[in-house]
Amino acid sequence: MSNPRFDRILLTGAAGRLGTELRRGLAPLCRQLRLADVVRITDLAPNEEALRFDLADMEATIAACEGVDAIVHFGGVPLERPWDQILNGNIRGSYHIYEGARKHGVGRVVYASSVHAIGYHRLEDRIDADAPHRPDGLYGLSKCFVEDLGRLYWDKFGIETAALRIFSSFPEPADRRMLWSWLSFDDCNRLVTAALTAPRVGFTLSFGLSGNAVKPVDNRLAGHLGYIPQDNTEAFRAVVEAKHPVPDPKAPAVQHLGGWFVDLGHPDDADKGGAAK
Amino acid sequence: MSNPRFDRILLTGAAGRLGTELRRGLAPLCRQLRLADVVRITDLAPNEEALRFDLADMEATIAACEGVDAIVHFGGVPLERPWDQILNGNIRGSYHIYEGARKHGVGRVVYASSVHAIGYHRLEDRIDADAPHRPDGLYGLSKCFVEDLGRLYWDKFGIETAALRIFSSFPEPADRRMLWSWLSFDDCNRLVTAALTAPRVGFTLSFGLSGNAVKPVDNRLAGHLGYIPQDNTEAFRAVVEAKHPVPDPKAPAVQHLGGWFVDLGHPDDADKGGAAK
Amino acid sequence: MSNPRFDRILLTGAAGRLGTELRRGLAPLCRQLRLADVVRITDLAPNEEALRFDLADMEATIAACEGVDAIVHFGGVPLERPWDQILNGNIRGSYHIYEGARKHGVGRVVYASSVHAIGYHRLEDRIDADAPHRPDGLYGLSKCFVEDLGRLYWDKFGIETAALRIFSSFPEPADRRMLWSWLSFDDCNRLVTAALTAPRVGFTLSFGLSGNAVKPVDNRLAGHLGYIPQDNTEAFRAVVEAKHPVPDPKAPAVQHLGGWFVDLGHPDDADKGGAAK
Amino acid sequence: MSNPRFDRILLTGAAGRLGTELRRGLAPLCRQLRLADVVRITDLAPNEEALRFDLADMEATIAACEGVDAIVHFGGVPLERPWDQILNGNIRGSYHIYEGARKHGVGRVVYASSVHAIGYHRLEDRIDADAPHRPDGLYGLSKCFVEDLGRLYWDKFGIETAALRIFSSFPEPADRRMLWSWLSFDDCNRLVTAALTAPRVGFTLSFGLSGNAVKPVDNRLAGHLGYIPQDNTEAFRAVVEAKHPVPDPKAPAVQHLGGWFVDLGHPDDADKGGAAK
Amino acid sequence: MSNPRFDRILLTGAAGRLGTELRRGLAPLCRQLRLADVVRITDLAPNEEALRFDLADMEATIAACEGVDAIVHFGGVPLERPWDQILNGNIRGSYHIYEGARKHGVGRVVYASSVHAIGYHRLEDRIDADAPHRPDGLYGLSKCFVEDLGRLYWDKFGIETAALRIFSSFPEPADRRMLWSWLSFDDCNRLVTAALTAPRVGFTLSFGLSGNAVKPVDNRLAGHLGYIPQDNTEAFRAVVEAKHPVPDPKAPAVQHLGGWFVDLGHPDDADKGGAAK
Amino acid sequence: MSNPRFDRILLTGAAGRLGTELRRGLAPLCRQLRLADVVRITDLAPNEEALRFDLADMEATIAACEGVDAIVHFGGVPLERPWDQILNGNIRGSYHIYEGARKHGVGRVVYASSVHAIGYHRLEDRIDADAPHRPDGLYGLSKCFVEDLGRLYWDKFGIETAALRIFSSFPEPADRRMLWSWLSFDDCNRLVTAALTAPRVGFTLSFGLSGNAVKPVDNRLAGHLGYIPQDNTEAFRAVVEAKHPVPDPKAPAVQHLGGWFVDLGHPDDADKGGAAK
Repeated sequence: MSNPRFDRILLTGAAGRLGTELRRGLAPLCRQLRLADVVRITDLAPNEEALRFDLADMEATIAACEGVDAIVHFGGVPLERPWDQILNGNIRGSYHIYEGARKHGVGRVVYASSVHAIGYHRLEDRIDADAPHRPDGLYGLSKCFVEDLGRLYWDKFGIETAALRIFSSFPEPADRRMLWSWLSFDDCNRLVTAALTAPRVGFTLSFGLSGNAVKPVDNRLAGHLGYIPQDNTEAFRAVVEAKHPVPDPKAPAVQHLGGWFVDLGHPDDADKGGAAK
Repeated sequence: MSNPRFDRILLTGAAGRLGTELRRGLAPLCRQLRLADVVRITDLAPNEEALRFDLADMEATIAACEGVDAIVHFGGVPLERPWDQILNGNIRGSYHIYEGARKHGVGRVVYASSVHAIGYHRLEDRIDADAPHRPDGLYGLSKCFVEDLGRLYWDKFGIETAALRIFSSFPEPADRRMLWSWLSFDDCNRLVTAALTAPRVGFTLSFGLSGNAVKPVDNRLAGHLGYIPQDNTEAFRAVVEAKHPVPDPKAPAVQHLGGWFVDLGHPDDADKGGAAK
Repeated sequence: MSNPRFDRILLTGAAGRLGTELRRGLAPLCRQLRLADVVRITDLAPNEEALRFDLADMEATIAACEGVDAIVHFGGVPLERPWDQILNGNIRGSYHIYEGARKHGVGRVVYASSVHAIGYHRLEDRIDADAPHRPDGLYGLSKCFVEDLGRLYWDKFGIETAALRIFSSFPEPADRRMLWSWLSFDDCNRLVTAALTAPRVGFTLSFGLSGNAVKPVDNRLAGHLGYIPQDNTEAFRAVVEAKHPVPDPKAPAVQHLGGWFVDLGHPDDADKGGAAK
Repeated sequence: MSNPRFDRILLTGAAGRLGTELRRGLAPLCRQLRLADVVRITDLAPNEEALRFDLADMEATIAACEGVDAIVHFGGVPLERPWDQILNGNIRGSYHIYEGARKHGVGRVVYASSVHAIGYHRLEDRIDADAPHRPDGLYGLSKCFVEDLGRLYWDKFGIETAALRIFSSFPEPADRRMLWSWLSFDDCNRLVTAALTAPRVGFTLSFGLSGNAVKPVDNRLAGHLGYIPQDNTEAFRAVVEAKHPVPDPKAPAVQHLGGWFVDLGHPDDADKGGAAK
Repeated sequence: MSNPRFDRILLTGAAGRLGTELRRGLAPLCRQLRLADVVRITDLAPNEEALRFDLADMEATIAACEGVDAIVHFGGVPLERPWDQILNGNIRGSYHIYEGARKHGVGRVVYASSVHAIGYHRLEDRIDADAPHRPDGLYGLSKCFVEDLGRLYWDKFGIETAALRIFSSFPEPADRRMLWSWLSFDDCNRLVTAALTAPRVGFTLSFGLSGNAVKPVDNRLAGHLGYIPQDNTEAFRAVVEAKHPVPDPKAPAVQHLGGWFVDLGHPDDADKGGAAK
Repeated sequence: MSNPRFDRILLTGAAGRLGTELRRGLAPLCRQLRLADVVRITDLAPNEEALRFDLADMEATIAACEGVDAIVHFGGVPLERPWDQILNGNIRGSYHIYEGARKHGVGRVVYASSVHAIGYHRLEDRIDADAPHRPDGLYGLSKCFVEDLGRLYWDKFGIETAALRIFSSFPEPADRRMLWSWLSFDDCNRLVTAALTAPRVGFTLSFGLSGNAVKPVDNRLAGHLGYIPQDNTEAFRAVVEAKHPVPDPKAPAVQHLGGWFVDLGHPDDADKGGAAK
């Protein structure tokens, strides 16, 4: 594609683990990539610009959406945290993003939802995207909220959303659960690219997974995104299995999609903090 | 029942339109009824006690749940309002209620959800409680949030929730839409009573409607609540139809469950406020 | 209702078995009832006017829709007949009706579809309106066609259709099958009235049955029409059962919804004509 | 009905709790009622004949089916019992009954299945008859077996079966669970009568419940049986609730359809016997 | 296969765009290929014979089915056209084909249905073959009719039909929509071959698409046909995207499966003709 | 994997057709493989031990489960046989296996169920694992029983079961049906390995098929097992089709999943024995 598909894409959470990878993946899709994060980003490429603000700052967040064709919203708190942080970073922050989209006429949002929006479903339930929300913590609850927010802004204001329920996007599968929950960084970029360029999204939910052998969910309801994973975890299996003992299949963290998030207590209680996605 | 089913029930929104009716309906179910509202309630019956606080006050709200067997949570903003009011009254306020339930070991919450959590579905879709959220405004969005919150507190903390999606609970059907969306005050009390006394609720969604002829949704998934409506709108039909012209069946407010809420603009925009449920 | 709901309703098939009953039922709903049939109707009431034409006559049929608020389309061939009659009376004729509705801006059509559009489903399948078409003859095939025609004119031209799959509408249940397939004339009028006055129809399929004990299908997807049957066949059971021997439950005509229509050969073959609905 | 519907019905388990009631209910349906049980029945009415044999006796059981129009199979072990008793009384015994039906050309079997075939489903799952088997013990497992046996004999040999999953059929509701699980004796007779006389059964599953307010399951898939309950538990509610304390809604025996059967250990283990249905 | 699977196949529409391709694909499947079209075909191969007639000619069409093992029915009007042409070419013409199959004992029909039978569904609905008909014009309506006709002739006369809902079968994808709607000519031949040789078809609906990345529908209900696409549009993407600007995802022609057919007015109106499939 | 996943696996039916193949496949998964069969196995590998007993012998069967991590239960009667053999080998025998698992704390059972548990479904029904049981004989009926037994032991005793409905596992596809029903021995080993090592099974049903072009069923509900077939029947197609004439697609043995099992009479009748799976 000589002409990029978009003029300017806003990427929130641009300094985060996935945000860093997405800078690489989004580059060919737009003339200009606007990076947003609460920390300063200094290594700007020529096609990049950066904004530093907190998503909880309504005015700054809305302003960041000006002149933008599409938003890739990966910002906010990425793990289980006390209510105040979830409320400000994810609930209020995402509301500000959608208000920015509405006020500045942005047509499509690609949102980093999470497996933790559906973490209390079981593997053997083999859910698809029609299954009801079953968040496994406050973090997952905030993801449910933003999915519903996206639905509202689609139904009422005509802003499309593809909400990607990312399972575990890390450099490599780090434990036995990731043998089925892993989303490689390259596949993550493929998925976001598909969600941005799909001819028609409306409001669509998709699961973010590489093509691993064990498939914990059924992604057929997102076939119109055109996402085709290229990676899987087979090359990592031997090492992971050697390092990690076989867990009890009846342990809550093994039976549920959310993994060890279901074992977490309430993040507002002392000494029970959350954990990286 | 000579012995009331509950020792003490907390009723939030006790000074509101439905709260006032529920004081009557809940009286036989408990030894003591604790009324909570942001306004002062002065006409206390002998079996009543009153607390005055704002749901946005976390400490006060949690304290109000002490010594309580069940919570009937009808408080919060009852109509489309700017984001700050929805955020404080409904999102933060309901979080405080569930934290109160968790900290004080309350076993069951009956929550006044709303048709506006699913307002963008159409009558001819004939949805049941498995249909996805489709809120028709910020108010409805907050109802979706609390439903998911109830689901989380059930899955993780074992607190049961019956979320009642109330359509239109008024003294009489006031317009043609209410001929199918009406929930009489008596039926509202029957529904709340059923939700409180049903042998097993887990997390249950139910539609709050009287037994009107036109049934906009299918309530069979809540049959285990044991709610049997006794009222319907036939006695009001002639008067309502004489007073209100036949609307265009293709008007958005007629085709969707949410009625004229779907016509509302964004409540944060100037001169576009919400309206009473 | 002092003011009738409609100004002028067009009733096709007005001289037929059901048409005659509908004249009575539609009278209170409109200021003027326009009767159409291929035979002359002479006993006009003051609020009635009559047109005589063949539905196969496109020009006449379209003209009959002028000045009309709603169409109750019960005309056409009412039973299994050779292809030419089905083609002209039901397929071409109904196309002309919908063209009339489109050209003259009629907002809603209530159409007499039939059980024979789904006659090859079995009682124990307990289908609802989502089940696929399974016509049991050319007559049923034409009913499927008109249902799809109604769907098209709704999706493309915004004309609402309620397609009523009438089972057996006769003065009394005449055989054992009618103990479950009967639709009393009064209930037929209730159903048509509901379909005309329901606040929102879009494209809706409903089964036309009285409240008989044996329910061969599930009508819940049409609950928004507000049809509540008042009659049933219990009063006729003893007489019918005494007169008609118990049939073999494995006979095709007993196991399928379509009854003896499934036993009919092809109507174009010699000596294999159809039969009254 | 002056002429009974059947010439001779075989009733197994005729001396049991329900068998005794069914003698009354089946009398008007047949010219001759053949009673079968492992105990002797002495109080025969003129239209009754009695056979005494063990269902585990293949030859005797098959012989009992000779000259019979329909079989109402309520015999066998009625509660959780060690494997040998379940195997002989329910699995082998029912196989003998179906072999009798096959060898003597009996067209329809009405079988007393049980809630315990689906006892591990939860009330809030609101299952219908399409839900998979989830037996709650060996007794329920044998009920699942016979349902599948009936399905096989229908598909392969054309013998119709209506399998009635009876919940709790006792003179009165005896505890809080029975407020929703009760099937009155009269409704039991109505249900069996409907299953025998329905025009077409094929293989049909139906839940056996009176019209109680709390509906633990959805019976719409059996609407073609024509069963309309006349009784409910409201008249017993006050007494039952006064006598029995409110149980914990999270107790396994409260959350699951099977009630306290889910609490039972294995019946082959010492000191862990079953209990009356 | 040394022995061809069929003795003689009738191919209608043999001179059309797809018909020409199918002559190549069907050659190895039969000893003799009978070509039918309204235009003369002169370049006959040794294994081919040709008949020239109009499908609206009942006698000629029926005669063409004599001595035939299977019919590949691709004839008729291939695009949106005024009612008379649709009626004669597609509705009456296909009826004649099925009558020919019935009268001459042909066991299986493979029918070129179309995406336009379901054109008003949306991409994000991700329908499968159980979704109801939603034609997007008279052309699509006639496709619905023939699907129902095939269903009838299966249920009543035991003639199998595989109805292939072809999306866009052209030499190359010509616009952005075809990047997901394209069916290559080779895949079209694979699909028809699968439909002809599948061990058991009954009445089966299948979507006709190559293995493109964006999957607008779910074809799993036709897995028993054994069709495995080998082509996809990736090689064409760059060129197509360079030539055609990004369309508005909210445009009706983009959101619906039927593409620009949903934008067409009524073909009977002046100056609003249809267009090639 | 240097360290085998299991310490000791019990394989029943170890001398059978599939058992022999599984010895090869299971070897890398466990330190010790315990072979059980009713015939003596003499060619033991160093990692193998053998037990000879009849599954109908409760004591011996339970004893064989001692010291075992997982059970691969492929023993019992492998084809349609008279009731006594099915009862003893499959029903009683499998009960003994599950009792062995319960008494000796075995966590997971992989069970060789069969297509004959669902043999009366049709290819064009395209069922998935949610479809109800429809056994095609006593053999299939016993498979249904063991599936329900596995479900019970999961729900009540926490023993996981993966029930694999094997279609046709033979060295090569031997007839036209096997072109779609074949499971290669290597794929059989892959499937059993997946079922043993999947992180979480609960109670899971999976269809046992290689990756053949014609897919008679939909296996998506078992995606969490991680089974990926590597073989298919294309290499055998030409030979099989040359040797076997095209069967009538309307023959019961062709239309149903169970194949010629549906043509079998009752195995207890003289001269109507069953046949190898």
